[in-house]
Amino acid sequence: MSLKIKTEFGGYKKLNFGTFFNPASIAIVGASPNEKSISGRTLNNLIKYEFQGEIYPVNPKYKEINKIPTFPDINSINGPIDLAILIVPAKSIPNVIEQCLNRNVPNVIIYSSGFAESGSDGEGLQNYLEEVSNRGDIRILGPNCQGIFNVKNNVAASFSGALNLPSISSGPVAFASQSGALGFSTFNQLQEEGIGFNYVVSTGNEVDLEVSDFLLEFAKQKDTDILISYVEGFKNPDKLLDLAEICLIEQKPLITFKVGESEVGAIAASSHTAALVGAGELYDSLFQQLGFIKVKDIDEISDLCKLLTKTKKPSGNRVGIVTTSGGAGVIIADQCSINDLEVPKLNNRTIENLSNYLPDFGSSINPVDLTAQIASSNKLFSDSINTIAEDPNIDILVVALTMVTGERSAEMAQFLIDKSKEINKPLVVIWMAGDKLAKPGLELLKKEKIACFKSPKRCIEAINKLVKIHSNFKRKNEMLTFISDKRRLLKNEISIENNLFEYKAKKWLEKNGLPITHEKLAHSAVEAGEYAKDIGFPVALKVQSEKIPHKTDIGGVILNLKTVEEVENAYQKIESEVLQKANLEEIDGILVQEMISDGVELFVGCTVDKQLGPSITFGLGGIFVEAIKDTKTVLPPLSKIQAKRLIEEIQGYNIMKGFRGQKPVNIDLLSEFISNFSIICASLKQSIQIDINPVVANSNGVKIVDALVVVEEEN
Amino acid sequence: MSLKIKTEFGGYKKLNFGTFFNPASIAIVGASPNEKSISGRTLNNLIKYEFQGEIYPVNPKYKEINKIPTFPDINSINGPIDLAILIVPAKSIPNVIEQCLNRNVPNVIIYSSGFAESGSDGEGLQNYLEEVSNRGDIRILGPNCQGIFNVKNNVAASFSGALNLPSISSGPVAFASQSGALGFSTFNQLQEEGIGFNYVVSTGNEVDLEVSDFLLEFAKQKDTDILISYVEGFKNPDKLLDLAEICLIEQKPLITFKVGESEVGAIAASSHTAALVGAGELYDSLFQQLGFIKVKDIDEISDLCKLLTKTKKPSGNRVGIVTTSGGAGVIIADQCSINDLEVPKLNNRTIENLSNYLPDFGSSINPVDLTAQIASSNKLFSDSINTIAEDPNIDILVVALTMVTGERSAEMAQFLIDKSKEINKPLVVIWMAGDKLAKPGLELLKKEKIACFKSPKRCIEAINKLVKIHSNFKRKNEMLTFISDKRRLLKNEISIENNLFEYKAKKWLEKNGLPITHEKLAHSAVEAGEYAKDIGFPVALKVQSEKIPHKTDIGGVILNLKTVEEVENAYQKIESEVLQKANLEEIDGILVQEMISDGVELFVGCTVDKQLGPSITFGLGGIFVEAIKDTKTVLPPLSKIQAKRLIEEIQGYNIMKGFRGQKPVNIDLLSEFISNFSIICASLKQSIQIDINPVVANSNGVKIVDALVVVEEEN
Repeated sequence: MSLKIKTEFGGYKKLNFGTFFNPASIAIVGASPNEKSISGRTLNNLIKYEFQGEIYPVNPKYKEINKIPTFPDINSINGPIDLAILIVPAKSIPNVIEQCLNRNVPNVIIYSSGFAESGSDGEGLQNYLEEVSNRGDIRILGPNCQGIFNVKNNVAASFSGALNLPSISSGPVAFASQSGALGFSTFNQLQEEGIGFNYVVSTGNEVDLEVSDFLLEFAKQKDTDILISYVEGFKNPDKLLDLAEICLIEQKPLITFKVGESEVGAIAASSHTAALVGAGELYDSLFQQLGFIKVKDIDEISDLCKLLTKTKKPSGNRVGIVTTSGGAGVIIADQCSINDLEVPKLNNRTIENLSNYLPDFGSSINPVDLTAQIASSNKLFSDSINTIAEDPNIDILVVALTMVTGERSAEMAQFLIDKSKEINKPLVVIWMAGDKLAKPGLELLKKEKIACFKSPKRCIEAINKLVKIHSNFKRKNEMLTFISDKRRLLKNEISIENNLFEYKAKKWLEKNGLPITHEKLAHSAVEAGEYAKDIGFPVALKVQSEKIPHKTDIGGVILNLKTVEEVENAYQKIESEVLQKANLEEIDGILVQEMISDGVELFVGCTVDKQLGPSITFGLGGIFVEAIKDTKTVLPPLSKIQAKRLIEEIQGYNIMKGFRGQKPVNIDLLSEFISNFSIICASLKQSIQIDINPVVANSNGVKIVDALVVVEEEN
Repeated sequence: MSLKIKTEFGGYKKLNFGTFFNPASIAIVGASPNEKSISGRTLNNLIKYEFQGEIYPVNPKYKEINKIPTFPDINSINGPIDLAILIVPAKSIPNVIEQCLNRNVPNVIIYSSGFAESGSDGEGLQNYLEEVSNRGDIRILGPNCQGIFNVKNNVAASFSGALNLPSISSGPVAFASQSGALGFSTFNQLQEEGIGFNYVVSTGNEVDLEVSDFLLEFAKQKDTDILISYVEGFKNPDKLLDLAEICLIEQKPLITFKVGESEVGAIAASSHTAALVGAGELYDSLFQQLGFIKVKDIDEISDLCKLLTKTKKPSGNRVGIVTTSGGAGVIIADQCSINDLEVPKLNNRTIENLSNYLPDFGSSINPVDLTAQIASSNKLFSDSINTIAEDPNIDILVVALTMVTGERSAEMAQFLIDKSKEINKPLVVIWMAGDKLAKPGLELLKKEKIACFKSPKRCIEAINKLVKIHSNFKRKNEMLTFISDKRRLLKNEISIENNLFEYKAKKWLEKNGLPITHEKLAHSAVEAGEYAKDIGFPVALKVQSEKIPHKTDIGGVILNLKTVEEVENAYQKIESEVLQKANLEEIDGILVQEMISDGVELFVGCTVDKQLGPSITFGLGGIFVEAIKDTKTVLPPLSKIQAKRLIEEIQGYNIMKGFRGQKPVNIDLLSEFISNFSIICASLKQSIQIDINPVVANSNGVKIVDALVVVEEEN
């Protein structure tokens, strides 16, 4: 399979946003008067949401449907058609598509299933659609999708049951989902939580238009501030980079619900929309490097949108917790520590001020337990909250209530609404009571758009993501540099023809500017002895042959040779034993290599993913790379600073810092090494695997001791 | 501080369950006609919930309250008083308690705050209460609590707002909570989810009665099947063992919401109810060893209770997923893999049968996407679900719906209700739609007590806990043995007087039956040479002095000595250099120790926690114990099988299994070693720390190479 990475930035077709989301005319091919059919539901939705353009039902059986003149086929329609919705059996699709091409219809939506997700016949049909869309005259959404909903401008080209809501609210959210059911279910659930949408689109099998095509356009819309996606995989790294760039520049968060990460999930995903699914860890790293927020549940989307649409921006991660119950404070503090949120001490002035209001049974540390008594006095409660909100150590205020119910709940809600407007930091409410008893208060908060949660866990997890979004925006320049470097390096092409075993692999790495051990390939015992003198004792001898991948196991490595004599003897020993044991006629030679006396053995590797391109992995080396798996994988290129951060993220960093009297590793040189390696890897497009194991790092620097490059056959 | 571990099993007082939860008479001291006061609310609740016994309001200001004759003080009440609720300022409490003692009141509940949680004055009052309760004539609940609610028999001795619910349902749940606000908030939220309770109690500062006292009695009640606790810490290991035992024997799950595990949370917890908080990891291990289920949020309690009260028992962890949307199936499969649930392949017969119903665009792997088309035919949907439910590879059936809404939702709900009765495995529904649109269906499921979730994540996490509960019950005998062994060993007393450095520590461990290296303490170079001959070459020399904790750092260790001469020279070198560098007059001697040529260096240690007693930690040794932290901590004693499980749980197990041509470690002997060590540790009561680092394990066995015992000063 050839890699789908396109070398030219922006070398992909853009979505016709205007005619797709604001068409002047829509044809429904396979229109039906049956209101329960998906076709009938689509027509009804267009009418119900007051679509302002022309509607052309197409069905040879009817003269009119719902009093709208109906056409026997596409050709019979007068006037231009901006969008055609195809609701006919899979096997009839090619015929209809040809008609659309004839009439220059720029966009079609195919609801029908029966394509790549359902076996060989369907695959043939899907191939046909791919080919048609590659020609470039028509853009296809689907097949196996549930259409689009432009909430803002009332274009409801979908049959989803979610459109049956009694009222729909427009707002800053745009959602592109591979799964129609999940996409519209999320839309439904968020709408019921009071979160407004501009656009919803479901992309199904993605024969042409994919989730990222829509996100790219959504990000450009002035009135759209929050992007959400549900995806099983991304196919085009170029689009991802462009998408990340625009999101960072426009400061619009992208929330991604990435599924299919378990083995079973991946199989199910491939059966579902026939997309290849990449490895979870790789996506995690990429999303982190690009500033996307990853979620695993609709609740997480809903919770985060609640904060994004209802609170002020936090300037940091320090949470001030105000409760009316000590227990609630403890739970919230525990949750903050599980997440990356700080619960800092209040500053002295705050504590001094608080001691004016707090009776002796409250506690003026953070979390601050104001007790139910204080909470029952609006004045004292208000003064206390103001005092804490003014503390320079606090970025976000969480106010937690427990059983504040009935009439009192409405008073409390009004108090919090006023308070939220008054203070200039985000104020988030946790209200731990049942919906029935706290109804008056909860409804008021919802109406006045104050972020309120029942579960401390969900609240704190959402705040954690909100903080991450804003800290990503602050690190915008670093991320934009990553993106532009990555684009530039993807245009380079470094390629390798054959597998490279130790000696050759190290030569190749050295040629690319990386430090390797002093070493020479000897072809006789005498030569080995001479080389050893040049290099300096002690040395190691290592047999070199691509037919011996595990040279230690058959006695092909002898370490710590201290004299010419020892070297010569060792050469002969290896040559005779290895040739015999490995049953070989000849070897490439025996490598004479300097010994590095101290340092930490590390692993640095690279693989190239079919969808996401090259990734690099770093961790403890030697036997630990496989046994302990203290490694982390990220996408290249890394700056020196990013490489340093990577080093600090593995547990083995504790050893590098200088353990039990050892001198610390020169982290500066190690960072430079990893950064340089990552820049080489960023230009790899072949399916290649590079293992550097070990590279030894000590106080003097870094040297590659052993390496291997495997070129995988393309299949 | 002295340890709170009681050596005699069962040596604690039992709660008077009868007079406490079913009192014939209740006095309210500090009664008030003000309906908004906590006192007035308590009186009203007793009346509203139709308490069948006598109520005696006590307040010298009133002749009657709510038409109930009111007494000036406890003494003036005629007849016995089973329970007194004290709602007077903290400083008046001692006076009222003395009156209660005079009148032989067996139980009091103190709502009042102002005790240990609020500084030194309060601490004095709390000490007074502790002393009174220790005398044994009166049992105290609180102070700083919100009382009790016997839902089953209508005793509402609480002022919580949760009692304002329009209707309360009785059921199998009993809840003991340290925090009153959290306890009654949880009660409120679960009631609104349709989960019935028998008992709720809030214990506050726990001056006398604590959460475990109540759980012990709840577990004995016939009509109570599910125990819930909210705790900041457990003080008495004896009670915990008894509690675990009765829960296992009666097969009643105990759900524990343990808080105060973060640093900040722990401080907040201590400010809250003045309990010492143990380390999170230790509690995690203990709960796991005793079969308790730990949660971090009220949602988790609610979700698990929903399953416990509404589904059949699962016989294993294998989930069959049936969806009407491929996307939902992928999400659920991902969640199963994050948890410990399997999504197995269906067996061939199931697949064959399914292919009869499934059109070509469905997929007959697990998750099974029946597609919206199939779901619209009750017959096909029913046959498919039956087929999957009958599959012997499946223990639990999860049926996930997306946008099934309106009238159709009620039909679907009825279908699932019938199906749930028909099949003999648990059937759990995930319905991913908003409450408004799916209302008819959701309400029907709730009414008919079918477990239904909106969030796949929450559903699968709850199923995971349900499976764990039943697998714990299956492992009952193993856990009961652990409990009885632990009790027996706690009765032993092993004590150590002084710190023991290497040589002495190993002697002590050897005396207790653990294998150590062959070694002898030499006091001269000649002696060292002779000992080395006895032991066999090569040997190591290691200086011994309690004044030299880091002997390697000052040249106090020389390894790999191969002749008598080398040993003698090394002895002299160490003696002269070490005495000089460490500036010492004398050393204990120099240890001559056998060298172990191969094997894995491991760490085994023990510490004694003030609340939970001894714990043992196992992991990779050498520098890795501190740098990589690949360790796991559990509570002793461990059987050989449990020790083996512990070994398998660390990542370093991969190295022990025989890595890169090394012979595998003898896991059998290593398990025996850990089990034996754990049995010694189980009898430790002093605050002691034992570090065995390293113990070397190889294919021949296990030997302790270095060890240290530190006796911590009691403070």
